[in-house]
Amino acid sequence: SSERVVAAGGGGWLPEFPNLSPSHRDLMAGILSEIDSRAGPLLLPSSVPADVRSFENEQGTCRGALDIRPGVVDGSTIDFILASWLHCELPFGALDITTMFGFLNATTDAPHLLMEFIQSSPKSLIIFMDLLPRKDLVLHPDHLTTFYEDTHIDKQRLELKKVTGALPYFSNSLYIRSVLSPTAIALNISLAEDGEVNMEEVLRDRVSPVSKEVARTWLDKCVCSERVVSEVERADLVRRDSLIKTKTVEIDLAANLPRLFGPDVAERVVEAIQKAFKIK
Amino acid sequence: SSERVVAAGGGGWLPEFPNLSPSHRDLMAGILSEIDSRAGPLLLPSSVPADVRSFENEQGTCRGALDIRPGVVDGSTIDFILASWLHCELPFGALDITTMFGFLNATTDAPHLLMEFIQSSPKSLIIFMDLLPRKDLVLHPDHLTTFYEDTHIDKQRLELKKVTGALPYFSNSLYIRSVLSPTAIALNISLAEDGEVNMEEVLRDRVSPVSKEVARTWLDKCVCSERVVSEVERADLVRRDSLIKTKTVEIDLAANLPRLFGPDVAERVVEAIQKAFKIK
Repeated sequence: SSERVVAAGGGGWLPEFPNLSPSHRDLMAGILSEIDSRAGPLLLPSSVPADVRSFENEQGTCRGALDIRPGVVDGSTIDFILASWLHCELPFGALDITTMFGFLNATTDAPHLLMEFIQSSPKSLIIFMDLLPRKDLVLHPDHLTTFYEDTHIDKQRLELKKVTGALPYFSNSLYIRSVLSPTAIALNISLAEDGEVNMEEVLRDRVSPVSKEVARTWLDKCVCSERVVSEVERADLVRRDSLIKTKTVEIDLAANLPRLFGPDVAERVVEAIQKAFKIK
Repeated sequence: SSERVVAAGGGGWLPEFPNLSPSHRDLMAGILSEIDSRAGPLLLPSSVPADVRSFENEQGTCRGALDIRPGVVDGSTIDFILASWLHCELPFGALDITTMFGFLNATTDAPHLLMEFIQSSPKSLIIFMDLLPRKDLVLHPDHLTTFYEDTHIDKQRLELKKVTGALPYFSNSLYIRSVLSPTAIALNISLAEDGEVNMEEVLRDRVSPVSKEVARTWLDKCVCSERVVSEVERADLVRRDSLIKTKTVEIDLAANLPRLFGPDVAERVVEAIQKAFKIK
Protein backbone atom coordinates (compact mmCIF):
# COMPACT_ATOMS: atom_id res chain seq x y z
CA SER A 1 0.00 0.00 0.00
CA SER A 2 1.14 3.49 -0.78
CA GLU A 3 -0.47 4.89 2.33
CA ARG A 4 1.69 6.53 4.89
CA VAL A 5 1.61 5.01 8.33
CA VAL A 6 -0.50 7.21 10.54
CA ALA A 7 0.99 7.89 13.94
CA ALA A 8 -0.55 9.66 16.90
CA GLY A 9 0.60 13.25 17.06
CA GLY A 10 2.63 12.78 13.94
CA GLY A 11 0.37 14.91 11.82
CA GLY A 12 -0.37 11.93 9.64
CA TRP A 13 -3.47 11.90 7.54
CA LEU A 14 -4.23 9.99 4.41
CA PRO A 15 -1.89 10.60 1.50
CA GLU A 16 -2.80 13.25 -0.99
CA PHE A 17 -5.95 12.27 -2.77
CA PRO A 18 -4.91 12.20 -6.43
CA ASN A 19 -8.19 13.17 -8.08
CA LEU A 20 -8.72 16.60 -6.60
CA SER A 21 -7.72 19.88 -8.19
CA PRO A 22 -4.60 21.42 -6.59
CA SER A 23 -6.49 24.18 -4.77
CA HIS A 24 -9.19 21.85 -3.46
CA ARG A 25 -6.45 19.48 -2.25
CA ASP A 26 -4.55 22.34 -0.59
CA LEU A 27 -7.75 23.51 1.06
CA MET A 28 -8.30 20.18 2.83
CA ALA A 29 -4.59 19.78 3.57
CA GLY A 30 -4.54 23.25 5.10
CA ILE A 31 -7.48 22.51 7.37
CA LEU A 32 -6.03 19.19 8.52
CA SER A 33 -2.68 20.82 9.12
CA GLU A 34 -4.36 23.44 11.36
CA ILE A 35 -6.00 20.61 13.27
CA ASP A 36 -2.71 18.73 13.58
CA SER A 37 -0.74 21.73 14.73
CA ARG A 38 -3.03 22.22 17.73
CA ALA A 39 -4.81 18.93 18.33
CA GLY A 40 -2.30 16.40 16.96
CA PRO A 41 -1.16 15.23 20.42
CA LEU A 42 -4.81 14.72 21.39
CA LEU A 43 -5.41 12.24 18.55
CA LEU A 44 -4.83 8.50 18.17
CA PRO A 45 -3.80 6.87 14.88
CA SER A 46 -6.45 6.12 12.27
CA SER A 47 -9.04 3.60 13.41
CA VAL A 48 -10.26 2.72 9.94
CA PRO A 49 -9.51 -0.62 8.17
CA ALA A 50 -7.47 -0.40 4.97
CA ASP A 51 -10.38 -1.33 2.68
CA VAL A 52 -12.33 1.65 3.99
CA ARG A 53 -9.38 4.04 4.14
CA SER A 54 -9.38 3.72 0.39
CA PHE A 55 -12.20 2.30 -1.73
CA GLU A 56 -13.66 2.42 -5.21
CA ASN A 57 -16.58 1.07 -7.20
CA GLU A 58 -16.37 -1.94 -9.54
CA GLN A 59 -16.20 0.15 -12.67
CA GLY A 60 -13.41 2.27 -11.20
CA THR A 61 -15.34 5.46 -11.90
CA CYS A 62 -15.77 6.43 -8.24
CA ARG A 63 -13.01 6.60 -5.68
CA GLY A 64 -13.16 7.41 -2.02
CA ALA A 65 -10.92 7.75 0.99
CA LEU A 66 -11.83 7.97 4.63
CA ASP A 67 -9.82 8.64 7.73
CA ILE A 68 -11.08 8.70 11.29
CA ARG A 69 -8.82 9.46 14.22
CA PRO A 70 -10.27 9.09 17.72
CA GLY A 71 -9.24 11.40 20.53
CA VAL A 72 -6.92 10.04 23.22
CA VAL A 73 -8.89 8.58 26.10
CA ASP A 74 -7.59 10.85 28.85
CA GLY A 75 -7.61 14.59 28.70
CA SER A 76 -8.95 15.06 25.18
CA THR A 77 -12.19 16.86 24.43
CA ILE A 78 -12.12 15.31 20.98
CA ASP A 79 -14.33 12.31 20.25
CA PHE A 80 -12.92 11.89 16.74
CA ILE A 81 -11.83 13.75 13.63
CA LEU A 82 -13.20 12.44 10.35
CA ALA A 83 -11.84 13.38 6.95
CA SER A 84 -13.15 12.07 3.67
CA TRP A 85 -12.48 12.50 -0.03
CA LEU A 86 -14.78 11.43 -2.81
CA HIS A 87 -14.29 11.58 -6.55
CA CYS A 88 -16.82 10.29 -9.08
CA GLU A 89 -16.91 10.40 -12.84
CA LEU A 90 -20.60 10.89 -13.55
CA PRO A 91 -22.43 11.28 -16.87
CA PHE A 92 -22.65 15.06 -16.40
CA GLY A 93 -19.04 15.47 -15.28
CA ALA A 94 -16.88 14.92 -12.22
CA LEU A 95 -18.20 15.18 -8.68
CA ASP A 96 -15.76 15.93 -5.85
CA ILE A 97 -16.76 16.02 -2.20
CA THR A 98 -14.41 16.57 0.69
CA THR A 99 -15.63 16.52 4.25
CA MET A 100 -14.10 17.20 7.62
CA PHE A 101 -15.96 16.56 10.85
CA GLY A 102 -14.52 17.40 14.27
CA PHE A 103 -16.69 15.81 16.93
CA LEU A 104 -16.18 16.59 20.59
CA ASN A 105 -17.04 14.24 23.44
CA ALA A 106 -19.38 14.87 26.37
CA THR A 107 -16.69 16.25 28.70
CA THR A 108 -17.46 19.53 26.95
CA ASP A 109 -20.59 21.18 25.56
CA ALA A 110 -18.63 23.27 23.04
CA PRO A 111 -19.66 23.00 19.37
CA HIS A 112 -18.50 20.42 16.84
CA LEU A 113 -16.83 21.44 13.58
CA LEU A 114 -18.22 20.70 10.13
CA MET A 115 -16.54 21.50 6.84
CA GLU A 116 -17.76 20.25 3.48
CA PHE A 117 -16.90 21.23 -0.08
CA ILE A 118 -18.89 19.93 -3.02
CA GLN A 119 -17.71 20.54 -6.58
CA SER A 120 -20.10 19.21 -9.20
CA SER A 121 -18.68 21.23 -12.06
CA PRO A 122 -15.62 23.43 -12.64
CA LYS A 123 -17.80 26.50 -12.14
CA SER A 124 -19.78 25.42 -9.09
CA LEU A 125 -18.87 24.98 -5.43
CA ILE A 126 -21.11 24.29 -2.45
CA ILE A 127 -19.59 25.12 0.91
CA PHE A 128 -20.60 24.17 4.44
CA MET A 129 -18.55 25.44 7.36
CA ASP A 130 -20.05 25.57 10.79
CA LEU A 131 -19.61 25.23 14.50
CA LEU A 132 -22.49 22.81 15.13
CA PRO A 133 -24.33 23.67 18.35
CA ARG A 134 -24.50 21.00 21.07
CA LYS A 135 -27.55 22.54 22.73
CA ASP A 136 -30.77 24.29 21.79
CA LEU A 137 -29.54 27.88 21.42
CA VAL A 138 -33.01 29.33 22.04
CA LEU A 139 -33.01 27.81 25.51
CA HIS A 140 -29.30 28.51 26.07
CA PRO A 141 -28.59 32.08 24.93
CA ASP A 142 -25.33 31.94 26.93
CA HIS A 143 -24.08 29.42 24.36
CA LEU A 144 -24.94 31.80 21.59
CA THR A 145 -22.95 34.52 23.34
CA THR A 146 -19.90 32.39 24.15
CA PHE A 147 -19.43 30.46 20.93
CA TYR A 148 -21.12 32.56 18.26
CA GLU A 149 -21.13 36.21 19.34
CA ASP A 150 -17.92 36.60 21.36
CA THR A 151 -15.95 34.63 18.76
CA HIS A 152 -17.13 36.97 15.96
CA ILE A 153 -17.48 33.88 13.79
CA ASP A 154 -20.21 35.51 11.67
CA LYS A 155 -17.49 37.71 10.15
CA GLN A 156 -16.23 34.66 8.27
CA ARG A 157 -19.66 34.10 6.71
CA LEU A 158 -19.83 37.76 5.70
CA GLU A 159 -16.35 37.49 4.20
CA LEU A 160 -17.25 34.56 1.92
CA LYS A 161 -20.63 36.07 1.05
CA LYS A 162 -18.70 38.78 -0.81
CA VAL A 163 -17.35 36.31 -3.38
CA THR A 164 -18.92 37.08 -6.77
CA GLY A 165 -21.55 34.46 -7.56
CA ALA A 166 -21.95 33.34 -3.94
CA LEU A 167 -25.51 32.77 -2.76
CA PRO A 168 -26.89 31.27 0.44
CA TYR A 169 -27.44 27.54 0.01
CA PHE A 170 -30.34 25.64 1.53
CA SER A 171 -29.87 21.90 1.94
CA ASN A 172 -32.80 19.82 0.72
CA SER A 173 -32.74 18.09 4.08
CA LEU A 174 -34.59 20.09 6.74
CA TYR A 175 -32.73 18.06 9.35
CA ILE A 176 -29.36 19.25 8.05
CA ARG A 177 -30.68 22.81 8.07
CA SER A 178 -31.84 22.44 11.67
CA VAL A 179 -28.48 21.06 12.79
CA LEU A 180 -26.63 24.15 11.57
CA SER A 181 -25.93 27.19 13.73
CA PRO A 182 -27.20 30.72 13.03
CA THR A 183 -23.73 31.63 11.74
CA ALA A 184 -23.38 28.61 9.47
CA ILE A 185 -21.63 29.23 6.19
CA ALA A 186 -23.86 27.46 3.65
CA LEU A 187 -23.07 28.90 0.26
CA ASN A 188 -23.32 28.00 -3.39
CA ILE A 189 -20.69 29.74 -5.49
CA SER A 190 -21.60 29.74 -9.17
CA LEU A 191 -19.08 31.31 -11.49
CA ALA A 192 -20.13 32.70 -14.86
CA GLU A 193 -19.31 30.21 -17.65
CA ASP A 194 -17.41 32.88 -19.57
CA GLY A 195 -16.14 34.75 -16.51
CA GLU A 196 -12.50 35.55 -15.83
CA VAL A 197 -12.43 34.23 -12.29
CA ASN A 198 -11.76 30.53 -11.97
CA MET A 199 -12.67 28.25 -9.09
CA GLU A 200 -9.05 27.39 -8.33
CA GLU A 201 -8.44 31.04 -7.43
CA VAL A 202 -11.62 31.25 -5.38
CA LEU A 203 -10.63 28.13 -3.43
CA ARG A 204 -7.09 29.34 -2.85
CA ASP A 205 -7.62 33.04 -2.22
CA ARG A 206 -11.07 33.20 -0.62
CA VAL A 207 -12.25 29.85 0.73
CA SER A 208 -8.96 28.57 2.14
CA PRO A 209 -8.20 31.56 4.42
CA VAL A 210 -11.75 31.50 5.81
CA SER A 211 -11.63 27.74 6.39
CA LYS A 212 -8.41 28.13 8.40
CA GLU A 213 -9.89 30.93 10.46
CA VAL A 214 -12.98 28.82 11.24
CA ALA A 215 -10.77 25.84 12.14
CA ARG A 216 -8.62 28.07 14.39
CA THR A 217 -11.70 29.46 16.12
CA TRP A 218 -12.91 25.93 16.76
CA LEU A 219 -9.52 24.84 18.11
CA ASP A 220 -9.12 27.92 20.34
CA LYS A 221 -12.64 28.43 21.61
CA CYS A 222 -14.14 24.94 21.50
CA VAL A 223 -11.53 22.16 21.62
CA CYS A 224 -9.39 24.00 24.15
CA SER A 225 -12.04 25.77 26.23
CA GLU A 226 -12.63 24.67 29.80
CA ARG A 227 -16.31 23.81 30.27
CA VAL A 228 -18.06 22.50 33.34
CA VAL A 229 -20.55 19.81 32.35
CA SER A 230 -22.76 18.09 34.92
CA GLU A 231 -23.70 14.41 34.78
CA VAL A 232 -27.24 15.26 33.65
CA GLU A 233 -26.01 17.60 30.92
CA ARG A 234 -23.55 14.96 29.83
CA ALA A 235 -26.32 12.42 29.25
CA ASP A 236 -28.29 15.03 27.30
CA LEU A 237 -25.27 15.81 25.13
CA VAL A 238 -24.70 12.14 24.36
CA ARG A 239 -28.34 11.71 23.38
CA ARG A 240 -28.38 14.80 21.14
CA ASP A 241 -25.00 14.00 19.55
CA SER A 242 -26.11 10.43 18.81
CA LEU A 243 -29.17 11.74 17.01
CA ILE A 244 -27.06 14.11 14.91
CA LYS A 245 -24.67 11.29 14.00
CA THR A 246 -27.43 8.80 13.21
CA LYS A 247 -29.41 11.26 11.11
CA THR A 248 -26.32 12.51 9.28
CA VAL A 249 -25.29 9.01 8.26
CA GLU A 250 -28.87 8.27 7.24
CA ILE A 251 -29.34 11.40 5.15
CA ASP A 252 -25.87 11.91 3.77
CA LEU A 253 -24.24 8.51 3.38
CA ALA A 254 -26.83 5.76 3.42
CA ALA A 255 -28.75 7.64 0.74
CA ASN A 256 -25.84 8.39 -1.60
CA LEU A 257 -23.01 5.88 -1.17
CA PRO A 258 -24.86 2.80 -2.54
CA ARG A 259 -25.77 4.73 -5.69
CA LEU A 260 -22.15 5.73 -6.29
CA PHE A 261 -20.18 2.73 -5.00
CA GLY A 262 -22.60 -0.20 -5.05
CA PRO A 263 -24.18 -1.84 -1.97
CA ASP A 264 -21.13 -3.80 -0.74
CA VAL A 265 -18.61 -1.00 -0.64
CA ALA A 266 -21.26 1.37 0.73
CA GLU A 267 -22.12 -1.04 3.54
CA ARG A 268 -18.47 -1.45 4.51
CA VAL A 269 -17.87 2.31 4.63
CA VAL A 270 -21.11 3.10 6.47
CA GLU A 271 -20.34 0.40 9.03
CA ALA A 272 -16.88 1.79 9.72
CA ILE A 273 -18.37 5.22 10.24
CA GLN A 274 -21.15 3.92 12.48
CA LYS A 275 -18.54 2.17 14.58
CA ALA A 276 -16.46 5.32 14.96
CA PHE A 277 -19.65 7.27 15.66
CA LYS A 278 -20.63 4.68 18.30
CA ILE A 279 -24.14 4.53 16.89
CA LYS A 280 -24.24 0.82 16.16
CA SER B 1 -62.34 57.57 19.45
CA SER B 2 -62.66 56.41 15.88
CA GLU B 3 -61.72 52.87 16.83
CA ARG B 4 -64.22 50.15 16.26
CA VAL B 5 -65.29 48.27 19.34
CA VAL B 6 -63.51 44.94 19.35
CA ALA B 7 -65.74 42.01 20.20
CA ALA B 8 -64.81 38.39 20.80
CA GLY B 9 -65.40 36.34 17.72
CA GLY B 10 -66.58 39.41 15.88
CA GLY B 11 -63.53 39.52 13.68
CA GLY B 12 -62.67 42.90 15.11
CA TRP B 13 -59.17 44.16 14.85
CA LEU B 14 -57.86 47.69 14.92
CA PRO B 15 -59.28 49.99 12.26
CA GLU B 16 -57.38 50.34 9.06
CA PHE B 17 -54.04 51.92 9.75
CA PRO B 18 -54.07 55.04 7.56
CA ASN B 19 -50.38 55.37 6.79
CA LEU B 20 -49.79 52.10 4.95
CA SER B 21 -49.88 51.63 1.22
CA PRO B 22 -53.06 49.88 0.01
CA SER B 23 -51.37 46.55 -0.74
CA HIS B 24 -49.45 46.48 2.54
CA ARG B 25 -52.71 47.25 4.38
CA ASP B 26 -54.57 44.53 2.46
CA LEU B 27 -51.78 42.07 3.24
CA MET B 28 -52.19 42.51 7.00
CA ALA B 29 -55.98 42.66 6.76
CA GLY B 30 -55.96 39.43 4.76
CA ILE B 31 -53.84 37.62 7.32
CA LEU B 32 -55.99 38.82 10.23
CA SER B 33 -59.11 37.86 8.36
CA GLU B 34 -57.75 34.31 7.89
CA ILE B 35 -57.07 34.17 11.63
CA ASP B 36 -60.54 35.47 12.43
CA SER B 37 -62.31 33.08 10.12
CA ARG B 38 -60.86 30.08 11.92
CA ALA B 39 -59.76 31.25 15.36
CA GLY B 40 -62.14 34.17 15.99
CA PRO B 41 -64.30 32.21 18.47
CA LEU B 42 -61.15 31.23 20.36
CA LEU B 43 -60.18 34.85 20.99
CA LEU B 44 -61.15 37.40 23.63
CA PRO B 45 -61.50 41.13 22.91
CA SER B 46 -58.39 43.30 22.84
CA SER B 47 -56.57 43.47 26.16
CA VAL B 48 -54.62 46.64 25.35
CA PRO B 49 -55.35 50.08 26.89
CA ALA B 50 -56.43 52.82 24.46
CA ASP B 51 -53.17 54.79 24.75
CA VAL B 52 -51.24 51.74 23.58
CA ARG B 53 -53.75 50.63 20.95
CA SER B 54 -52.80 53.84 19.21
CA PHE B 55 -49.75 55.98 19.97
CA GLU B 56 -47.42 58.53 18.40
CA ASN B 57 -44.30 60.52 19.21
CA GLU B 58 -44.31 64.17 20.32
CA GLN B 59 -43.35 65.50 16.90
CA GLY B 60 -46.10 63.46 15.26
CA THR B 61 -43.62 61.90 12.83
CA CYS B 62 -44.05 58.33 14.13
CA ARG B 63 -47.35 56.56 14.63
CA GLY B 64 -48.05 53.12 15.97
CA ALA B 65 -50.93 50.82 16.69
CA LEU B 66 -50.99 47.64 18.71
CA ASP B 67 -53.63 45.03 19.30
CA ILE B 68 -53.35 41.96 21.47
CA ARG B 69 -56.19 39.48 21.83
CA PRO B 70 -55.77 36.68 24.37
CA GLY B 71 -57.18 33.21 23.74
CA VAL B 72 -60.30 32.18 25.65
CA VAL B 73 -59.37 30.45 28.90
CA ASP B 74 -61.01 27.10 28.18
CA GLY B 75 -60.42 25.05 25.10
CA SER B 76 -58.16 27.40 23.20
CA THR B 77 -54.61 26.52 22.22
CA ILE B 78 -53.98 30.21 21.61
CA ASP B 79 -52.10 32.21 24.22
CA PHE B 80 -52.58 35.49 22.30
CA ILE B 81 -52.55 37.05 18.87
CA LEU B 82 -50.56 40.26 18.53
CA ALA B 83 -50.84 42.64 15.60
CA SER B 84 -48.91 45.86 15.26
CA TRP B 85 -48.52 48.68 12.76
CA LEU B 86 -45.73 51.23 12.74
CA HIS B 87 -45.19 54.20 10.50
CA CYS B 88 -42.28 56.63 10.85
CA GLU B 89 -41.18 59.57 8.78
CA LEU B 90 -37.42 59.36 8.99
CA PRO B 91 -34.72 61.56 7.39
CA PHE B 92 -34.11 58.94 4.67
CA GLY B 93 -37.81 58.33 3.98
CA ALA B 94 -40.75 56.48 5.47
CA LEU B 95 -40.40 53.29 7.50
CA ASP B 96 -43.36 50.92 7.76
CA ILE B 97 -43.36 47.80 9.89
CA THR B 98 -46.30 45.48 10.38
CA THR B 99 -46.07 42.47 12.65
CA MET B 100 -48.33 39.57 13.48
CA PHE B 101 -47.51 37.11 16.22
CA GLY B 102 -49.64 34.06 16.97
CA PHE B 103 -48.50 32.55 20.24
CA LEU B 104 -49.83 29.22 21.45
CA ASN B 105 -50.09 28.18 25.08
CA ALA B 106 -48.53 25.14 26.76
CA THR B 107 -51.52 22.83 26.19
CA THR B 108 -49.87 22.23 22.81
CA ASP B 109 -46.29 21.97 21.58
CA ALA B 110 -47.22 23.05 18.05
CA PRO B 111 -45.30 26.02 16.56
CA HIS B 112 -46.10 29.71 16.98
CA LEU B 113 -46.70 31.95 13.97
CA LEU B 114 -44.57 34.98 13.09
CA MET B 115 -45.20 37.38 10.25
CA GLU B 116 -43.33 40.65 9.79
CA PHE B 117 -43.07 43.05 6.88
CA ILE B 118 -40.57 45.91 6.89
CA GLN B 119 -40.68 48.58 4.19
CA SER B 120 -37.89 51.11 4.50
CA SER B 121 -38.21 52.45 0.97
CA PRO B 122 -40.68 52.08 -1.91
CA LYS B 123 -38.31 49.58 -3.55
CA SER B 124 -37.37 47.48 -0.53
CA LEU B 125 -39.26 44.93 1.54
CA ILE B 126 -37.99 42.61 4.27
CA ILE B 127 -40.22 39.64 4.98
CA PHE B 128 -40.33 37.22 7.89
CA MET B 129 -42.87 34.41 7.89
CA ASP B 130 -42.32 31.37 10.02
CA LEU B 131 -43.76 28.64 12.15
CA LEU B 132 -41.51 29.15 15.19
CA PRO B 133 -40.48 25.80 16.72
CA ARG B 134 -41.41 25.17 20.34
CA LYS B 135 -38.72 22.50 20.79
CA ASP B 136 -35.15 21.79 19.74
CA LEU B 137 -35.74 20.19 16.33
CA VAL B 138 -32.39 18.38 16.41
CA LEU B 139 -33.51 16.47 19.48
CA HIS B 140 -37.09 16.12 18.24
CA PRO B 141 -36.99 15.07 14.58
CA ASP B 142 -40.65 13.99 14.90
CA HIS B 143 -41.51 17.68 15.23
CA LEU B 144 -39.64 18.42 12.06
CA THR B 145 -41.63 15.71 10.28
CA THR B 146 -45.04 16.71 11.63
CA PHE B 147 -44.90 20.48 11.33
CA TYR B 148 -42.31 21.18 8.65
CA GLU B 149 -42.06 18.19 6.31
CA ASP B 150 -45.61 16.78 6.23
CA THR B 151 -47.08 20.29 5.91
CA HIS B 152 -44.89 21.02 2.84
CA ILE B 153 -44.42 24.51 4.26
CA ASP B 154 -41.03 24.89 2.54
CA LYS B 155 -42.93 25.21 -0.77
CA GLN B 156 -44.05 28.66 0.35
CA ARG B 157 -40.43 29.75 0.87
CA LEU B 158 -39.49 28.44 -2.56
CA GLU B 159 -42.47 30.29 -4.07
CA LEU B 160 -41.41 33.67 -2.68
CA LYS B 161 -37.75 33.05 -3.47
CA LYS B 162 -38.74 33.25 -7.16
CA VAL B 163 -39.69 36.93 -6.89
CA THR B 164 -37.20 38.99 -8.88
CA GLY B 165 -34.83 40.79 -6.51
CA ALA B 166 -35.55 38.46 -3.59
CA LEU B 167 -32.54 37.35 -1.56
CA PRO B 168 -32.27 35.44 1.71
CA TYR B 169 -32.16 37.88 4.62
CA PHE B 170 -30.05 37.36 7.72
CA SER B 171 -31.13 39.25 10.82
CA ASN B 172 -28.30 41.04 12.61
CA SER B 173 -29.47 39.34 15.77
CA LEU B 174 -28.14 35.81 16.09
CA TYR B 175 -30.87 35.13 18.61
CA ILE B 176 -33.59 35.96 16.09
CA ARG B 177 -31.83 33.69 13.58
CA SER B 178 -31.72 30.85 16.10
CA VAL B 179 -35.42 31.21 16.92
CA LEU B 180 -36.43 30.66 13.29
CA SER B 181 -37.26 27.25 11.83
CA PRO B 182 -35.37 25.59 8.94
CA THR B 183 -38.23 26.59 6.61
CA ALA B 184 -38.39 30.21 7.74
CA ILE B 185 -39.09 32.73 5.02
CA ALA B 186 -36.55 35.47 5.69
CA LEU B 187 -36.20 37.50 2.52
CA ASN B 188 -35.12 40.91 1.36
CA ILE B 189 -36.85 41.96 -1.83
CA SER B 190 -35.00 44.80 -3.57
CA LEU B 191 -36.59 46.10 -6.73
CA ALA B 192 -34.52 47.87 -9.37
CA GLU B 193 -34.92 51.66 -9.07
CA ASP B 194 -35.86 51.93 -12.72
CA GLY B 195 -37.60 48.54 -12.94
CA GLU B 196 -41.14 48.04 -14.19
CA VAL B 197 -42.34 45.96 -11.25
CA ASN B 198 -43.57 47.94 -8.28
CA MET B 199 -43.76 46.83 -4.68
CA GLU B 200 -47.54 47.20 -4.54
CA GLU B 201 -47.86 44.47 -7.16
CA VAL B 202 -45.33 42.25 -5.40
CA LEU B 203 -47.22 42.62 -2.11
CA ARG B 204 -50.59 41.95 -3.72
CA ASP B 205 -49.73 39.21 -6.22
CA ARG B 206 -46.84 37.36 -4.57
CA VAL B 207 -46.52 38.05 -0.85
CA SER B 208 -50.20 38.12 0.07
CA PRO B 209 -51.12 34.66 -1.33
CA VAL B 210 -48.12 33.08 0.40
CA SER B 211 -48.91 34.80 3.70
CA LYS B 212 -52.46 33.42 3.60
CA GLU B 213 -51.19 29.94 2.85
CA VAL B 214 -48.74 30.10 5.77
CA ALA B 215 -51.49 31.40 8.07
CA ARG B 216 -53.84 28.60 6.92
CA THR B 217 -51.15 25.98 7.53
CA TRP B 218 -50.65 27.35 11.02
CA LEU B 219 -54.40 27.36 11.73
CA ASP B 220 -54.94 23.83 10.36
CA LYS B 221 -51.82 22.04 11.53
CA CYS B 222 -50.85 23.94 14.68
CA VAL B 223 -53.75 25.82 16.29
CA CYS B 224 -56.22 23.02 15.60
CA SER B 225 -53.99 19.96 15.98
CA GLU B 226 -54.51 17.64 18.94
CA ARG B 227 -51.25 17.24 20.83
CA VAL B 228 -50.56 15.30 23.99
CA VAL B 229 -48.29 17.31 26.30
CA SER B 230 -47.10 15.94 29.62
CA GLU B 231 -46.68 18.07 32.75
CA VAL B 232 -42.90 18.00 32.41
CA GLU B 233 -43.02 18.99 28.75
CA ARG B 234 -45.45 21.75 29.62
CA ALA B 235 -43.00 23.29 32.08
CA ASP B 236 -40.25 23.07 29.47
CA LEU B 237 -42.46 24.77 26.88
CA VAL B 238 -43.30 27.61 29.27
CA ARG B 239 -39.62 28.13 30.05
CA ARG B 240 -38.57 28.15 26.39
CA ASP B 241 -41.50 30.35 25.30
CA SER B 242 -40.73 32.84 28.07
CA LEU B 243 -37.17 33.13 26.86
CA ILE B 244 -38.31 33.73 23.27
CA LYS B 245 -40.73 36.42 24.42
CA THR B 246 -38.24 38.11 26.73
CA LYS B 247 -35.47 38.11 24.15
CA THR B 248 -37.75 39.28 21.35
CA VAL B 249 -38.95 42.28 23.36
CA GLU B 250 -35.36 43.03 24.37
CA ILE B 251 -33.92 42.84 20.85
CA ASP B 252 -36.81 44.13 18.79
CA LEU B 253 -38.74 46.63 20.89
CA ALA B 254 -36.66 47.83 23.83
CA ALA B 255 -33.86 48.64 21.38
CA ASN B 256 -35.92 50.49 18.75
CA LEU B 257 -39.08 51.98 20.25
CA PRO B 258 -37.38 54.61 22.49
CA ARG B 259 -35.42 55.90 19.51
CA LEU B 260 -38.58 56.31 17.42
CA PHE B 261 -41.22 57.27 20.00
CA GLY B 262 -39.29 58.66 22.97
CA PRO B 263 -38.84 56.93 26.34
CA ASP B 264 -42.34 57.51 27.78
CA VAL B 265 -44.38 56.14 24.89
CA ALA B 266 -41.89 53.31 24.43
CA GLU B 267 -42.14 52.33 28.08
CA ARG B 268 -45.95 52.28 27.96
CA VAL B 269 -46.02 50.08 24.85
CA VAL B 270 -43.31 47.70 26.04
CA GLU B 271 -45.09 47.31 29.39
CA ALA B 272 -48.39 46.43 27.71
CA ILE B 273 -46.61 43.82 25.62
CA GLN B 274 -44.72 42.40 28.61
CA LYS B 275 -48.03 42.09 30.45
CA ALA B 276 -49.67 40.23 27.57
CA PHE B 277 -46.52 38.10 27.22
CA LYS B 278 -46.65 37.36 30.97
CA ILE B 279 -42.93 38.08 31.26
CA LYS B 280 -43.14 40.80 33.90
